[in-house]
Amino acid sequence: MRFDVLTLFPEIFTGYLGESLLNKAIDKQLVEAHVHNLRDWANDKHNRVDDRPFGGGPGMVIRVQPVVEAIEQIQPLGEMPGRLILLSPQGRTLNQPLVEELAQQQRLTMICGRYEGFDQRVIDLLQPEEISLGDFVLNGGEVAAMAIIDSVIRLIPGVLGDEQSAVDDSFSEGNRLLEFPQYTRPREYRGLNVPEVLLGGNHQEILAWRKQQSLEKTKMRRADLLDQHSDDAHDNKR
Amino acid sequence: MRFDVLTLFPEIFTGYLGESLLNKAIDKQLVEAHVHNLRDWANDKHNRVDDRPFGGGPGMVIRVQPVVEAIEQIQPLGEMPGRLILLSPQGRTLNQPLVEELAQQQRLTMICGRYEGFDQRVIDLLQPEEISLGDFVLNGGEVAAMAIIDSVIRLIPGVLGDEQSAVDDSFSEGNRLLEFPQYTRPREYRGLNVPEVLLGGNHQEILAWRKQQSLEKTKMRRADLLDQHSDDAHDNKR
Repeated sequence: MRFDVLTLFPEIFTGYLGESLLNKAIDKQLVEAHVHNLRDWANDKHNRVDDRPFGGGPGMVIRVQPVVEAIEQIQPLGEMPGRLILLSPQGRTLNQPLVEELAQQQRLTMICGRYEGFDQRVIDLLQPEEISLGDFVLNGGEVAAMAIIDSVIRLIPGVLGDEQSAVDDSFSEGNRLLEFPQYTRPREYRGLNVPEVLLGGNHQEILAWRKQQSLEKTKMRRADLLDQHSDDAHDNKR
Repeated sequence: MRFDVLTLFPEIFTGYLGESLLNKAIDKQLVEAHVHNLRDWANDKHNRVDDRPFGGGPGMVIRVQPVVEAIEQIQPLGEMPGRLILLSPQGRTLNQPLVEELAQQQRLTMICGRYEGFDQRVIDLLQPEEISLGDFVLNGGEVAAMAIIDSVIRLIPGVLGDEQSAVDDSFSEGNRLLEFPQYTRPREYRGLNVPEVLLGGNHQEILAWRKQQSLEKTKMRRADLLDQHSDDAHDNKR
């Protein structure tokens, strides 16, 4: 899978791209990540990527020309154009079903904004899919692009050591509920013990306990997921 | 404001911490960010931070001892203990009101997970506030911690050039709706023109147009925010 990221601050990605799991996936040639500097396409006489908004107001707006021309040159760099994503608080909220959908793609091309966002004509001309991390405002799309890369790569076969890990995750295909509590050694720490059932070795009991814990935790913290869960069960019957 | 981040992969943060806005905030002494390597507290004879889960299952679980002892040593490093946050898909979903609340703190201490998460006793003993970026699964808490830093610092007075920028943002205090479309030069690009009203200089007309655009976009894309919006209006009357 190939990721292309267009940003004004490519250096933000340096530490992240060296991160162990991603780095291993790149070494195994399961993932390619290319970061492009938007400034390289600022070809007006002042080399500006941004300018003041028409109609007034604070801050700066990213100009339409550099973004449109950058994407026109980046898309032909891969075997096929990437699914075009613009990170924006105005977009569709990222969730696990969308992550699963994105993980099916061979290539994603992501545009990261900054400042007061993009000239509206970027969206009118390129018609990217707008995706938002959630109902909060970041300083730019870079951290959101990392979140997409982070969540998508763990679904690419061969990237995680054990594929079952991703299936069991909270919100994931095999489990749209919150995950059950986990314990590891030592059996006792500062007076707190590992639940007996996990030490017994009875796999059916363990499975039942985990299922019940998962349900209880979800009921207490995220009852909304239980409604979706039963909707999904209906959907699966179609 | 002081951020402390506890992680198994401190190098992920190197690029991000050099990022222009954050870097300027650090230079201006408005923000301090300290990244701590969890491995420094792995003091058993094998130096392990993780181990296999009791009861079986894929992957590894982060051990309780290194996390508890790390936090016990990190919290006294600042003038006061930080508000303790554990990044987890099981947590309360981050949104702008929560970001605004976090921005009021003098210090945040964030614990980033990896693998199959933490031994449950980490949560039982430290009782951190669990925060989730959204209903998707990341490879670890690092990108989520960056999202918190990113969204929080822009609300710290002096970090953004113009405080009004943060007030006008989507979901923000001054505006719980999506932001209106922005335009900058040139007036015409590939046949697309800047809306006349923005060029006219009539500030009341511009304000009305932006308000209407903001409402329409929100109605089309995120009608749920309009319900919350009217709820908020009621809340403000109390």
